[in-house]
Parts: sequence; structure tokens; C-alpha cells
Amino acid sequence: MSVSSDHRRSVVLRRRPHGAPAVHDFEVIEGPIPEPGPGEVVTHTLWLSIDPYMRGRLSEAKSYAKPVEIGEPMTGETVGRVIASHDPHLKPGDIVIGARGWQTHIVSPAAALTKLPVGEAPLSTYLGVLGMPGVTAYSGMTDIGQPKAGETVVISAASGAVGSVAGQLAERAGARVVGIAGGPEKCLFAQEVLCFDDCVDHRCADLPAALRAACPNGIDVYFENVGGAVQRAVFPLLNDFGRMIMCGMVSEYNDTQPQPGPNLMSVVRKRLRIQGLIVGDKPERFAEWRALATPWVRDGTLHYREDIVDGLESAPEALVGLLSGRNFGKLVVRVTPETT
Amino acid sequence: MSVSSDHRRSVVLRRRPHGAPAVHDFEVIEGPIPEPGPGEVVTHTLWLSIDPYMRGRLSEAKSYAKPVEIGEPMTGETVGRVIASHDPHLKPGDIVIGARGWQTHIVSPAAALTKLPVGEAPLSTYLGVLGMPGVTAYSGMTDIGQPKAGETVVISAASGAVGSVAGQLAERAGARVVGIAGGPEKCLFAQEVLCFDDCVDHRCADLPAALRAACPNGIDVYFENVGGAVQRAVFPLLNDFGRMIMCGMVSEYNDTQPQPGPNLMSVVRKRLRIQGLIVGDKPERFAEWRALATPWVRDGTLHYREDIVDGLESAPEALVGLLSGRNFGKLVVRVTPETT
Repeated sequence: MSVSSDHRRSVVLRRRPHGAPAVHDFEVIEGPIPEPGPGEVVTHTLWLSIDPYMRGRLSEAKSYAKPVEIGEPMTGETVGRVIASHDPHLKPGDIVIGARGWQTHIVSPAAALTKLPVGEAPLSTYLGVLGMPGVTAYSGMTDIGQPKAGETVVISAASGAVGSVAGQLAERAGARVVGIAGGPEKCLFAQEVLCFDDCVDHRCADLPAALRAACPNGIDVYFENVGGAVQRAVFPLLNDFGRMIMCGMVSEYNDTQPQPGPNLMSVVRKRLRIQGLIVGDKPERFAEWRALATPWVRDGTLHYREDIVDGLESAPEALVGLLSGRNFGKLVVRVTPETT
Repeated sequence: MSVSSDHRRSVVLRRRPHGAPAVHDFEVIEGPIPEPGPGEVVTHTLWLSIDPYMRGRLSEAKSYAKPVEIGEPMTGETVGRVIASHDPHLKPGDIVIGARGWQTHIVSPAAALTKLPVGEAPLSTYLGVLGMPGVTAYSGMTDIGQPKAGETVVISAASGAVGSVAGQLAERAGARVVGIAGGPEKCLFAQEVLCFDDCVDHRCADLPAALRAACPNGIDVYFENVGGAVQRAVFPLLNDFGRMIMCGMVSEYNDTQPQPGPNLMSVVRKRLRIQGLIVGDKPERFAEWRALATPWVRDGTLHYREDIVDGLESAPEALVGLLSGRNFGKLVVRVTPETT
């Protein structure tokens, strides 16, 4: 990159994608490094999280959060270092989470920021296993899934940021955990590293049959991250009183027409519970999860994998890849090396 | 009827219907009045309940209860008078609920029977507002719907046995209650007698528009009894954190191919909860509801309507009519007049 570091770079939305987004739906613009206003803080971005929900922000369709406007910086969670502060509790050098945007430098109200401990866990993990995706998995399993010993729990996008934590929480509850992932490498990871009991490759010739074989006692809990053909394979296998944690349906995010869903008669017959989850609805869960899971990350009993790409300019391509399943593990952009 | 009352008459399943059942899928057979075995009781049937779930019992498809076999008496809940007893707690003349079958005389294990109080409420109400349909509405609203003051609650099959109670419970919680029913007479009943705030006729020219107009603030709770076009009209209007109590989908029970359901992406986006309910899962609720609601029936604050047909032989036609929405209120068969 030839751009100088005394400018701010921002990735802004150039136009709304129809269907799959492309790299040239975004552009990089440059400007001066901003100054903080009263009660504001400026951070230098170290890590930027790339997550499936971002597809929703590119559309004008009504959702739980407002869309990114054309010409505005794309939204995203970051870990950054404070470089200027008009808040008494935050000083230059502090590491914080909460500044949002695909930008090298971000102005935030101090109240939006949470100071992170240094040295307890790698800083990037606060965007992944210890951050929003981890909390999503934790909330889904705690509030909706509630897996019990001996139950069968199926996790889609099993090697991903949310799925890998969700499955390990189900393991801790004594459940039999079956992952679904794309390709042999991800399946191997789910079985060998995450210690799932089984993992089914959704690209196999007959997914419904493979899943049925992997779940001889049916499915009690399904953590839904992908939708589409995977959802259609899972749904008929749900047991009486089965729970579907509806976290995302990434395989359908680029659809321009919604696919039909399952007939809901079996929801009555089997007393299923299908419930949606947005992590931001219970903000208190973030601190709760960090306190619970940090020791597990430190002692190595909670496994995770990161897919790190370098440079803010790589963010659009990273998101495009994420939406087609090309990433492997929690996708983060190293915007600035921590040692600078 | 020319059959003598010293014989037992039974309505048995002659063949399994494909699609809508017909009267000649059943036949009436006659036999001797049975004697009770050890621990058994014989009842003379006074009232027989006809309910939508019975369609499921005619099919071999896997469900939460086993199907009725060809040649077997059709199943159904009854209120009857004990005529012979080999149980110390039940004596001839006692009125009981719990004997099952489309029969004039039924042999039951005493443990299956619950003695009913005489004079507290009309005996037929123990099959309707105070019985299984009432408990269904109560459980659905208590465990899943949980309507709050000011919320909008939509009830399909609003004038029916379950819907009429569900809506009145939502009224008691302070919600705005909108019914959906078939035809002006049922809608008038829902508004004038049940005191629902509004009622939409699902046979109107544009159901989605009519429902939207009746629910200017969207829908927070939907009590699902009918499925099909009604479900398709309701689903897009659900608000964030909306609850769908999945009790039944009677408009689809005769379908030979399942209709597609809603795409579940909005379950994530709106954090919906879609949950199925079978009343038998919590048997303790029956006594709880009877204790709670009997005073309301006695003081006239819990309204209900019965659709009474006479004679066991009328049961098949009554069921056929129920499945196409021809009944108006809780459908019961007066098998034997109480004064006999």
C-alpha cells in the first residue's frame, strides 16, 4: 500500500449489491485523521471483525439494524488502541473494543468503548471466541438450545466462529455433537481439534442420508447458521421437543427471492421450538462470557481457529469470501500490526 | 334409530381417508354391553367431543399418538355415567371424564377416569371450555404466548373451542385481541360475545390487507389453529420478539402434500419464537385450569359457544364438517340425553 499512515483510510459502500456482493461494491477513501470531540475517543484500529451479519447491512430491507448508507464507511466491530481521548477513563495506549467501522482510525463516544485487559488473551480473540461470535453461541445454547447429556446436537458452519463455540458448549453439557461443514478439511478440524463426535460435509452427494447416518437417534438441538439445503436436511430429523436456535442463514443471504421454508405442521406434532437470536439483545452477556471463557482460552480447553487477512483493503474480498464459505475459522482483518 | 339401548353401538374406522374424510369411511357396529374386568369401569356415554386432532388419528403417518386401526372404534374424549364398576372409588351413577371412544358404552381402567362434580358447570363444558380445548388455550398462552398489556394478539379459528378461550385469556392480560374466523356470523360472535377488539373474515377478498388494517401495530402473539392462507397472512406481520403458538393447522389436515412454509430468515431477524404445543404433555394443567376457570364459567365472564349434534351416528358427519369449518363453537355429540 502506498498510502501514508498519517491519513485515515476508510472502506465505504459504493453501491448496494443485488445478490452476491463484489469487491467493487466498496471503495477505499482517504482523509485526515480525526480529532475527538467532547466525550469522544479516537482509536487506531488493530483488528477488524468480518461477520456474516454484514450482508444484511448492505441491503435496504427492514432488519434489526439500519443499513449502511451509500458513501458511508462499512460497519464492523474492531479492537483498537486509543490515540486521543477526551474522556477521563481512557488514555492513549489503552486497548478497547466497541469502535465500529472499516477504518484505520475511528471516532467513538467513550461510552461505546470497553477497555480490554492486556496479556490475558490474544487481542483478536475479543472479536471471535471471546467476543460477539462466542457470546452468540453462548446465548443460543443458554437461552434456547439447553442441550442435555445424551442428546444429539447438530451445529452448522461447525468450524466457524459461532459454530465452533456452540459445539464445544454442547460437548461440555455431555451431548453428542455432530457438525456440518463445507469440505474435508473443515470436517477434520471439527472432529480432531474441536472433538465433535462426527462431522458431515454438506458438499457430499447425499446430505440428508449422510446426516441421518450421523444422527441415528435423531436431532434434539440444531444450531442454525446456514439455512438452505442444510436446513432442509436437518428439519425432518428433529426429535420431539427439538430446539432450533435460529442464529443465521448465511447460505441464503445473497438470495434475491426467499426460498420456501419447512411446513410448520411438524412444529405442532413434535412440539418443536424454533427461536431467533440476536446477540445484541442481551449486552450483559458479553462481560459474563468473557469472565467464563477467558480461563478456557488460557488453559486451552476452548479451541478456536482464526482466519487472518492483512490490511484494511482486504476487507471487501474477505467478506465476499465469507459469504461463499471460503474462510476457515473466525475471519479477522489485521488492520495494523499490534507492534506498531 | 331403531337400535335398542341394551346393546352397545360403536363407530369404527372402515378405511383410511386419502385427503378429506367422508362419512362412509366409518361404520356403526353393534354388540353386547360389556362387563368390567378387575379394576375396570363401564360408562354410558353422555357427551362425545369432536376435535380437529382426530384427523391425525385416521392416518398412519407418524405422530404424537398412534393411529386408530381399521375396524377399531374411533377415539375421542367423553363424559359418561358409571353403570358398572370394579373400582372402590367409582360407583354407578358417578359422572366421569376420561373414557375414550365413539361408543355408547365404554370399558376403561378406573385410573383413566376423573370423577366430575355435578351441578358446578354443564357437563358438556368439561369437553370444551373447561376441558381439553380450554386447557390447550391456557397452556399455549401461559407457556408460549405470554401476552402483555398493549400487545396485539391474533387468534385464528377465533370462535372455536380453543380460539375463543385463547382470545379471552389475552383480553384478561390487557392485550388487543384480533380474531380470524370464517364468515360474518362467527366474526360477529367473536366481537359481540367474546368481546374481541376486531375480527377478520378469512373468506374476504384480500385477507392480508384486511389483517394488516386490523393490526396497525403488527402482531405480537399469534395463536395458530389453522395454517394455510391464514398463516401466510399473519407471518409477515409478526413484530420483533413475536410468539407463534403452534396448536394446529386444521386447514391443511386433509392435504395429501405438505404446503411450503415460511422462509425462516425472519425468525432470526425478528427473534421470533415458534413453538408447538400438545395439551397432553402437561396433564397437571387440566385440574389447574378447571379450578381457575370454573368460577369464570359460573359468573359468566368466560364466554363459550357449543355446537351440539345429537346421536352417536352423527359423529362422522360432524367430524367431516369440523374439518371444513362448518361447525360454530365447540362441537360435541349428545350421545345420550343426561336425563335418561
